[in-house]
Amino acid sequence: VAAGLGEFEIIARFFAPLSANRRGALGLLDDAALIAERPNRSLVATTDTIVAGVHFPPDAAPADVAGKLLGVNLSDLAAMGAEPEAYLLALALPRAWSAADLSSWLEGFTAGLAARQGEYGIVLIGGDTVATPGPLTLTLTALGHVETGRALLRSAAQAGDIVYVSGSIGDAALGLRVLRGELAALEAEHRAFLLDRYRLPRPRLNLGRRLPGIAKAAADVSDGLVADLGHICAASGVAARIDADRVPMSAAAVTAIGNDPALLALALSGGDDYELVFTAEAPMAQAIAQLSQELDLPLTAIGEIVPPGDGQADGWVRVERNGAPFVIDMAGWQHLG
Amino acid sequence: VAAGLGEFEIIARFFAPLSANRRGALGLLDDAALIAERPNRSLVATTDTIVAGVHFPPDAAPADVAGKLLGVNLSDLAAMGAEPEAYLLALALPRAWSAADLSSWLEGFTAGLAARQGEYGIVLIGGDTVATPGPLTLTLTALGHVETGRALLRSAAQAGDIVYVSGSIGDAALGLRVLRGELAALEAEHRAFLLDRYRLPRPRLNLGRRLPGIAKAAADVSDGLVADLGHICAASGVAARIDADRVPMSAAAVTAIGNDPALLALALSGGDDYELVFTAEAPMAQAIAQLSQELDLPLTAIGEIVPPGDGQADGWVRVERNGAPFVIDMAGWQHLG
Repeated sequence: VAAGLGEFEIIARFFAPLSANRRGALGLLDDAALIAERPNRSLVATTDTIVAGVHFPPDAAPADVAGKLLGVNLSDLAAMGAEPEAYLLALALPRAWSAADLSSWLEGFTAGLAARQGEYGIVLIGGDTVATPGPLTLTLTALGHVETGRALLRSAAQAGDIVYVSGSIGDAALGLRVLRGELAALEAEHRAFLLDRYRLPRPRLNLGRRLPGIAKAAADVSDGLVADLGHICAASGVAARIDADRVPMSAAAVTAIGNDPALLALALSGGDDYELVFTAEAPMAQAIAQLSQELDLPLTAIGEIVPPGDGQADGWVRVERNGAPFVIDMAGWQHLG
Repeated sequence: VAAGLGEFEIIARFFAPLSANRRGALGLLDDAALIAERPNRSLVATTDTIVAGVHFPPDAAPADVAGKLLGVNLSDLAAMGAEPEAYLLALALPRAWSAADLSSWLEGFTAGLAARQGEYGIVLIGGDTVATPGPLTLTLTALGHVETGRALLRSAAQAGDIVYVSGSIGDAALGLRVLRGELAALEAEHRAFLLDRYRLPRPRLNLGRRLPGIAKAAADVSDGLVADLGHICAASGVAARIDADRVPMSAAAVTAIGNDPALLALALSGGDDYELVFTAEAPMAQAIAQLSQELDLPLTAIGEIVPPGDGQADGWVRVERNGAPFVIDMAGWQHLG
């Protein structure tokens, strides 16, 4: 398709090994891939596109691009409580690249996929490769499965549920600032930590697959904590109240916000953390504490689901600090994408 | 994402109606979509990307782009003998478009999807919308299903099989010439027919779903008859011999080739016809004739599968005319993509 490398050559050399001889992948050479279906399971399917210069820097290491592409998609499976199974990959590769550029990029990219797909329990089963006059554009479709009726939906939250979030919030948005040369007052170790959190999403698959039966509604934190909790509220016809001081933050984020308190709003509303935000009934607190310990992953209660009303639209999220409203000007914090 | 239209607004206004209230689509607002699995069925999954200026003209009617995107993907399901079920859509929309450009394009595009998805038996269950500094780039993932063990694979051809092709061959490659302002000697009706065959793939779903149990190997004609039959041969470890004069051609193609005999090679090797090429054992001839009649679709025997050998690599396709080899210089006929 590009620079003298044909599609079949690209498949054989770079992608066929990623199918790990999965039978239904048909060597990545057939018209489509096959997955045997099972009774009482539901297929879970999601697709996400990332574009060079929009979702990742054009000079990003190809293995990091692979990690980001897998991460953002598998995070969606995690948020549904699904077990990942396989993925398809559609690549639009810049025509302007030389054969050497293309080979070296594909080598790094497929090495990045190979390094992570075992950990996630997935293999490549199909895809497409085309040439583009535009920027590198990558689309991944992730397929997983969940016991029928047990998927975690955004629409399942109810007034009285406790709102939990995994890990720490705001690191990725702060990491993007570091990438742009800001936050220079932070020590190098903190800067590196935040940058890494921006660069490489770590989908919370181990958490997601344990949440059916414990959580009610869930979403991944891709657009930002306030926005994604808002999506749960909108889908469920409820509202939420969270306490800014209970939102878990890393030492690096705490230091950055200590230096510049205006960054708190960025941390609460910035995207790309790929943590899970979920709701659960109050009596689940002990099961959640136990799960947190087992997974060695903080699961922090940050507020509660409340009825809509007060003249507010569904999906409204009230952020409080010391009992007073903490107003976030969302328009001020544009996502890179 | 672009020109002041947010992703949720785009989903609600343009895409949600295409989910036709399918429960597992979750209103296109959740992290992923759900499809209930069934015992003894296999999921069939394929993905294809099309780029403006590469796979379709930048000024193509948006409804035609929708038809092409659905067509190329569903043709892959047809070639597997699958029943289509649902699709996911990832759109990279040019940042440079104004809100009016974007709305009007999305209106035409989704009208095109709506017009066709009923005919194909599919609904939209998920997707992603991003902004790009590059050209319009569209990726569709089509999901279908087939009885386990009955999918038509490229690898199933055996020496002695008869090679069949559906419909007529070469129209799309000739239609691309018409689009480029060539073949001016043809009458307007023939030019319009060829152009339409290039512009709008009609996936052979009704044929594909009837072929399990009749055909052995199959592929869709996307890269060109000789190339796609070659893919079957390579995957099956065999070769093929076809007779150029038996390859079914439309009246328009016959006229064009009559005017310029050099176009025969283009018709045999050009892409984008989206017919099916398949192999079957000789005793299936009557069942195939019957099927052709039922579907009102020509199914024409054009040659046979032969053992590899003669010092030729697997995948070799010998085209003959009046018993002599008819040599096609494949390098001379570059696909638009």
